[in-house]
Amino acid sequence: MTDTLIDRRDLAFQLYDVMDTEALLQRERFRDHSKDTFDAVIETADRIARETFANHNSAADKDEPRFVDGEVQMLPEVKQAFDAYAEAGFLAGRYDEALGGMQLPESIMAACNGFFTAANPGTAGYPFLTTAAANLIRVFGNEQQRRTFLPPMLSGRFAGTMALTEPHAGSSLADIRTSASPTDQGHYLIKGAKIYISGGEQSLTDNIVHMVLAKIKGAPAGVKGISLFIVPKFRVDADGNPGERNGVSLAGLIHKLGYRGTTSTALSFGDDAPCHGYLVGEPHQGLKYMFQMMNEARLGVGFGAAVIGYRGYMHSLAYAKDRLQGRKPSEKNPESPQVPIIEHADVRRMLLAQKAYSEGGLALCLFGARLMDDQHTHPDPQKREEAGKLLDLLTPVIKAWPSEYGPKANDLAIQVYGGAGYTREYPVEQCWRDNRLNPIHEGTNGIQALDLLGRKLWQDQSHGLQILLQEMQVDLKAATSERCQPWALSLSETLQQAVKVTQTLGKSLMGGDPDPALANASCYLHLFGNIIVAWMWLRQANAAIDGLAAASSDADRHFYNGKLQAAQYFFHWELPTVAQDLVLLRNQDNTCLNMQTEWF
Amino acid sequence: MTDTLIDRRDLAFQLYDVMDTEALLQRERFRDHSKDTFDAVIETADRIARETFANHNSAADKDEPRFVDGEVQMLPEVKQAFDAYAEAGFLAGRYDEALGGMQLPESIMAACNGFFTAANPGTAGYPFLTTAAANLIRVFGNEQQRRTFLPPMLSGRFAGTMALTEPHAGSSLADIRTSASPTDQGHYLIKGAKIYISGGEQSLTDNIVHMVLAKIKGAPAGVKGISLFIVPKFRVDADGNPGERNGVSLAGLIHKLGYRGTTSTALSFGDDAPCHGYLVGEPHQGLKYMFQMMNEARLGVGFGAAVIGYRGYMHSLAYAKDRLQGRKPSEKNPESPQVPIIEHADVRRMLLAQKAYSEGGLALCLFGARLMDDQHTHPDPQKREEAGKLLDLLTPVIKAWPSEYGPKANDLAIQVYGGAGYTREYPVEQCWRDNRLNPIHEGTNGIQALDLLGRKLWQDQSHGLQILLQEMQVDLKAATSERCQPWALSLSETLQQAVKVTQTLGKSLMGGDPDPALANASCYLHLFGNIIVAWMWLRQANAAIDGLAAASSDADRHFYNGKLQAAQYFFHWELPTVAQDLVLLRNQDNTCLNMQTEWF
Repeated sequence: MTDTLIDRRDLAFQLYDVMDTEALLQRERFRDHSKDTFDAVIETADRIARETFANHNSAADKDEPRFVDGEVQMLPEVKQAFDAYAEAGFLAGRYDEALGGMQLPESIMAACNGFFTAANPGTAGYPFLTTAAANLIRVFGNEQQRRTFLPPMLSGRFAGTMALTEPHAGSSLADIRTSASPTDQGHYLIKGAKIYISGGEQSLTDNIVHMVLAKIKGAPAGVKGISLFIVPKFRVDADGNPGERNGVSLAGLIHKLGYRGTTSTALSFGDDAPCHGYLVGEPHQGLKYMFQMMNEARLGVGFGAAVIGYRGYMHSLAYAKDRLQGRKPSEKNPESPQVPIIEHADVRRMLLAQKAYSEGGLALCLFGARLMDDQHTHPDPQKREEAGKLLDLLTPVIKAWPSEYGPKANDLAIQVYGGAGYTREYPVEQCWRDNRLNPIHEGTNGIQALDLLGRKLWQDQSHGLQILLQEMQVDLKAATSERCQPWALSLSETLQQAVKVTQTLGKSLMGGDPDPALANASCYLHLFGNIIVAWMWLRQANAAIDGLAAASSDADRHFYNGKLQAAQYFFHWELPTVAQDLVLLRNQDNTCLNMQTEWF
Repeated sequence: MTDTLIDRRDLAFQLYDVMDTEALLQRERFRDHSKDTFDAVIETADRIARETFANHNSAADKDEPRFVDGEVQMLPEVKQAFDAYAEAGFLAGRYDEALGGMQLPESIMAACNGFFTAANPGTAGYPFLTTAAANLIRVFGNEQQRRTFLPPMLSGRFAGTMALTEPHAGSSLADIRTSASPTDQGHYLIKGAKIYISGGEQSLTDNIVHMVLAKIKGAPAGVKGISLFIVPKFRVDADGNPGERNGVSLAGLIHKLGYRGTTSTALSFGDDAPCHGYLVGEPHQGLKYMFQMMNEARLGVGFGAAVIGYRGYMHSLAYAKDRLQGRKPSEKNPESPQVPIIEHADVRRMLLAQKAYSEGGLALCLFGARLMDDQHTHPDPQKREEAGKLLDLLTPVIKAWPSEYGPKANDLAIQVYGGAGYTREYPVEQCWRDNRLNPIHEGTNGIQALDLLGRKLWQDQSHGLQILLQEMQVDLKAATSERCQPWALSLSETLQQAVKVTQTLGKSLMGGDPDPALANASCYLHLFGNIIVAWMWLRQANAAIDGLAAASSDADRHFYNGKLQAAQYFFHWELPTVAQDLVLLRNQDNTCLNMQTEWF
């Protein structure tokens, strides 16, 4: 077991050497910041995460929230952590100073939040949901809604939730049934049931602000008839003081496989008492609004998956250096001392894979956060637009790739521990269970694949894809070192084939029946995702070559050599796995599509 | 949630159409049996498994055994299940009638045991460990040991365990420290500590018979100094009646991620009281004896992994047929009814992959059981020898392939369920947790890879490999149908490349330093395993083509079409993944081997 949540040396490399985060300091919005303030806020996040979040990660898993007499009982440490996060200013970290915020770039906020998830994903859920809900109100709420709800949410007196899913409508939001009836007092009456609502009940805050999707009576069918409502647990006066209980109630807690510290709830609206809801923005625009939050949440899911993978890697690396077991095959003397298991080639493989997945995932998610920064704060409007389009294209990858490979990393961490890894006496099994949520929530990875292949690639005449190809060219061209050149070549060749198969699929999609072209969307996501992460590794490798040339200490040389070896691992062991996807996509393989229900 | 543990239609197909289990009826040992008695015993296993094992699978997971006042408290249902298994005669199922056994073939016993593991792996652990321990005594024990211990073990009054691992010696048995000192009363005094001993304490039986590896004082170093001892919890008189408490005691329970119904214990020997142990066979031959058990246990682990995968598949298949969600991409009308999720191509992919892994794994394990039958009962002595050698070669694959792909199947089962799959209110998450043990115990899959590439391939001048190639040729040649021919061709081509790379690796291994040649052993295991399972699918496909030609009902046609589609899935989607292994092995890729500890 190790204290390290995310390797600070690696994070600094990624933020400053690979991404040039310091360039943000030139921008108007961040002019009061400096590299020192960035580092200080990261230091604070790391410290609070270790002291206040990591301390009860295991305890909150073992002693999950209970539903007793209509109340949720939780460990007191969860509230202490939530309050510490709020008091350090992270709830409002990205907000304007005028709103009490720190005006931090997304790149830095993402890095900070990484420490909290790595330390304790269950507890980190509450503040993250709160900022996501607050963000919706900030962007789409009216003046009064912002005045009423934002201050208590950003200071941690109120928490927020996202209430989308219903028992019969999970992936298919078009089919939600929760209804909203207008009244002549300005509010709507909400009626219905929601399920899997994270943080839907807790004992942390004075109030809970649910962001609820519902259909106003007479609305159009499908997604075009969905509206967004604020539904507080306690109704509030104009100053935001909670008063009378609103008609939203806890129908039950759901018991999860992991992420146990975050309550997962079934909520009923308007069952026992009238449930007031306040329309956000225009009627029937709810899904569009919610998608802003959802896109941010998807980036957050990817980040979480990457850092839980990272955390397991840190644990298993420490264990592998410490645990003595066996000898190398070439050592035939049974009386020679046992070696640390990190000496065994297969254990190195499992550690190197974890390094490639975790640091590759981290690089991808930080890149996404930087795109958000560029989208909102780049001085050049064209660059802002381009960053937004590229982020849009990459969002399904940033959600899905780490949530596929982060759990793989955790699986390998268990295997490195061997029998010990299978016990709850060691920490990696919890990482593995916690991380298993990430391929499911905020749109399953199957949904992400459809979003990428069915929609994102073709938006705006594939402008996003063109931007991507240009950006990749920059790094491919920069890969002039002897070590990186062959990797750039193999990435470039794979990319060409992927572009070709993309064009073929595009023609099929435009040409008529979308079902066959979309049938193997998951292969496409795997192909595309691994190309993107290979690019992330090429960027790191290019930076490592520069770093190595300038390195003045053994520690530095070891660090850069490790980066290059992990890049080599990715190019030799991972990128080639897409050959299989290319074949299946090229052939529009119909094995799955043609399988019949009655044949199972 | 479904009642089906293993599809009986599939099992019958595999046993009778693919493997011709009826041929065993010609053999002397099985002459009192008939297809009817085989079917009746399978029916009994399925029924007892559903009624007495499945009934508390979830309860025993939620309410795991507790250590209270030096005793282990367990659900009463566990003892009822253990007793039902014993009363139905399964403990002695494979034994001679003279020993009260049923003289069942291994093929049938394996199938029967599959139902118990699918129903409740935790509870099934106790009888399985007991038969494994009894088998060691039967083969290597002396007359008195057999007379004393076998009757109560085969009737379920005593249970058995395997005590190998020590806190500092898991994979590396050479380093065990538990000692055995001879006395002049015939027994030895055992002193030491063991860990992860499954069933090491329980409240099911009058006595527990531990099969313990220990070193006699003055024994040679390493594996050549290990002896095997019987260490009963209670010492017994000549008639096998338990008397005085022996000096083996429970030091603590270990809390596992899954398989919670089976106690995992730390045991101490000779700490508070003298611990008597009785030497089995010759001194210093213990590891050789234990390996007989270990090889059987490895087949059992593979079988367990396959059927837990199978069980999750059955659950998720039932759910996918029932759960309505969304519409096909081509359906643009939001008011059209939602479809069962099995209609979605990506869900079909996840079900088809589960089918390919579960049924492929089952085929592999039944094939292994048949080799055991042939090894012991084939009328032709040469065939007996060949079966033994082939089984020896395939044992690491039969252990490792299902324990890699069974958990993959369970992972997909969770994904099919979506959010529901992540909750403990649905059954698939437990399958996933239970199955995670299988890549670890009885030799991690990394150890299996070294066993295959470092030892098994080269034994007896690679005679096992030659037998394998001959056997495969039979089925490759039989694949004359239009559907199967291309699959046979691709298998044959892959096989040729694998043989070539095997020869190259063999030369490196013989030539000097084994470390580089063994560094990517896990790739070799992946390559070899997928070739073997592709062969298993070709055998099934050949049989399905015959079945389809003779089919007289829609149900039959659906069944065979399903088999062919799953075979196609395996040949299009899974077998090609070994291309990557071939490249890495051919190049003796040194990425992992050359990674340095300080670079991490």
